[in-house]
Amino acid sequence: MTATTTDPAAAAADEPYVTRTDSGGVATLTLNRGARFNPLSRAMLEALDAALATIGDEPSVRAVVLEGSGRGFSAGHDLGEMRSHVGDDDWQQELFDACSVVMLRLTQIPQPVIAKVDGIATAAGCQLVSMCDLAVASEGSRFGLPGVNIGVFCSTPAVGVARNVGRKRAMELLLTGEMVDAATALDWGLLNAVVPADQLDAAVARFTDVITSRSAAVIANGKRTFWAQIDQPLASAYETAGRAMVADLAGEDAAEGIDAFLQKRRPVWRG
Amino acid sequence: MTATTTDPAAAAADEPYVTRTDSGGVATLTLNRGARFNPLSRAMLEALDAALATIGDEPSVRAVVLEGSGRGFSAGHDLGEMRSHVGDDDWQQELFDACSVVMLRLTQIPQPVIAKVDGIATAAGCQLVSMCDLAVASEGSRFGLPGVNIGVFCSTPAVGVARNVGRKRAMELLLTGEMVDAATALDWGLLNAVVPADQLDAAVARFTDVITSRSAAVIANGKRTFWAQIDQPLASAYETAGRAMVADLAGEDAAEGIDAFLQKRRPVWRG
Amino acid sequence: MTATTTDPAAAAADEPYVTRTDSGGVATLTLNRGARFNPLSRAMLEALDAALATIGDEPSVRAVVLEGSGRGFSAGHDLGEMRSHVGDDDWQQELFDACSVVMLRLTQIPQPVIAKVDGIATAAGCQLVSMCDLAVASEGSRFGLPGVNIGVFCSTPAVGVARNVGRKRAMELLLTGEMVDAATALDWGLLNAVVPADQLDAAVARFTDVITSRSAAVIANGKRTFWAQIDQPLASAYETAGRAMVADLAGEDAAEGIDAFLQKRRPVWRG
Repeated sequence: MTATTTDPAAAAADEPYVTRTDSGGVATLTLNRGARFNPLSRAMLEALDAALATIGDEPSVRAVVLEGSGRGFSAGHDLGEMRSHVGDDDWQQELFDACSVVMLRLTQIPQPVIAKVDGIATAAGCQLVSMCDLAVASEGSRFGLPGVNIGVFCSTPAVGVARNVGRKRAMELLLTGEMVDAATALDWGLLNAVVPADQLDAAVARFTDVITSRSAAVIANGKRTFWAQIDQPLASAYETAGRAMVADLAGEDAAEGIDAFLQKRRPVWRG
Repeated sequence: MTATTTDPAAAAADEPYVTRTDSGGVATLTLNRGARFNPLSRAMLEALDAALATIGDEPSVRAVVLEGSGRGFSAGHDLGEMRSHVGDDDWQQELFDACSVVMLRLTQIPQPVIAKVDGIATAAGCQLVSMCDLAVASEGSRFGLPGVNIGVFCSTPAVGVARNVGRKRAMELLLTGEMVDAATALDWGLLNAVVPADQLDAAVARFTDVITSRSAAVIANGKRTFWAQIDQPLASAYETAGRAMVADLAGEDAAEGIDAFLQKRRPVWRG
Repeated sequence: MTATTTDPAAAAADEPYVTRTDSGGVATLTLNRGARFNPLSRAMLEALDAALATIGDEPSVRAVVLEGSGRGFSAGHDLGEMRSHVGDDDWQQELFDACSVVMLRLTQIPQPVIAKVDGIATAAGCQLVSMCDLAVASEGSRFGLPGVNIGVFCSTPAVGVARNVGRKRAMELLLTGEMVDAATALDWGLLNAVVPADQLDAAVARFTDVITSRSAAVIANGKRTFWAQIDQPLASAYETAGRAMVADLAGEDAAEGIDAFLQKRRPVWRG
């Protein structure tokens, strides 16, 4: 009505792409473009990667929750932005390089990352879920790899999703572009828990409570080792994992943890 | 009764090993030795590979359905033929080389291949199902790796089947030689859908309808990328897939697909 | 009461760590520290590996059953022993080297190994289950990777378990340290069968009966090939498996097996 009326879109553009709240050793990262289903634009990916990298260097953070604002988790890349750069292969390559950096970063930071999904998680949004260490979703959430519908096959999302759900099911998502519900995603191994929406926080807390009460040093070594060994042949996977066990046992927390267990008391972690 | 009475076996021997029918961009290949449960003899494998290779070069074909004639899908290799060459290791090696060429060909042609199973799919027949991009079966279909029963362990079928159903379940099929029903195969990830026999065509059409209505160029790039990345470690898998995304976006169909989506209209694919 | 009263602990210490009973071509190895949930101490691992290696050279053994004495299968490594060596990294490395040797030995001996679980199978005990070719459990059995609770992340158990149950589920076991019941472990692919405790022997016999009635030479070749191909990319996996098929067909049992099948009689195996 007046010249000072705020344009909501302009106001939203000033908002940070990713917000962070911390509580009890848990950093919650919120994709902050809820009105547009939190598209993974270049700016969003850079903000998310920066937030994850920062957290990776903060020993006070013991667990990370990744969620979306608004009515969904994430609908994948920003179609308008991608469209505006069709013909600029360098830009596109930079986009997917940036995307892969984020996806691998999820596995590289020392803290476990839990996807908290309430709504749709599609394309690169579904990929984010697949690359988190754990994932919980509300019953009404839906998952899919619909890129085939718009001429951009979900090849990068397939990397993470196929390693969660298997080949035939990944191919079904990829070739049909159809959505599956949360119960199916749970059955297929993409999720760890599905709960009513009003119990989603509690379902996340079930994981963060236990993670934050254990040794962060031990969890960090364990997570790093898991992702290192999972792509190796069996014998070298055991070599990698065996060295990690020795490293755990050389740490202060193993002695404390075992003593506490044998003495039937609560351990006091240093790490 | 007379000298001119046709010998059914001789007549069958003149039939092509694999027949092909085309409709609406879908090529249906039918294993054509139904009276013998479509054994994968040398001749059958060569005919199937030739048919697949031909289709691979035909842009008008958008999807492939692989089915068996008669009461089953395929019971695997031709035991009589294999038996007659025991002692001829070169022949046996050529048989399994030819078989592996077909199995890999299923993943190499640009079009998605859908196994349509109505009856038994055992040994190399089960392997065919495992190597197709998608698979649907009638409720009464059964699956197994029974080679152990006849002194020929299903080692090549295990390659594809274990990559669909996991290690313990593959080992169970291999060591017991027992059959599992279609519901179990679906639960284990070998199949994408199980339906009553009279709905099998519709279940296949659910997949072919969507595949044929999307960009063949995009699907070809996506399928090639899927099979390239699935055996790679995570970081290189993302490199492979990222390049494929850039290639998609450099194609005409991405611009059209995204435009159509943003404009809420149906896309018109070039590819 | 008197100086000659036997100290039960001392008596137990004299017992062999692993006992073996043989019946009908089946060697049953029993972890023999039931009062302590059969900890995988250095001595236990050495005894188990020696028993497996011995069996591997005995053609009369056609199948192996691995079970625990007492109320559980195995609760993993010996915490007291590990604790007493904290600070001695060489000892710890030797422990995990010895453990990995056993785990790989399960896949290397020619005979299939069946885990028979009645009670808890946790940490390296759960790892043993994951590395057996087949596994059956009583309904009340429970499985977990609780090392995080005591400051020693279950990184080596994760190698086997993640390759049975997938990434998200393995991470859940690792990060929460919580137990899952047998039905869940079956659903996730860690087990082949779950039955009431009083039917556990029958469930094992279902597997051993069929295995002992088939050609041991064929099964040995098949098992070796399975574990060789499972970590290879698709094309080389097929090369490996194809050569194994040719080797089977060059053996006496293939000819006999196929002849028996075609003649509808029982085969008489040489291998």
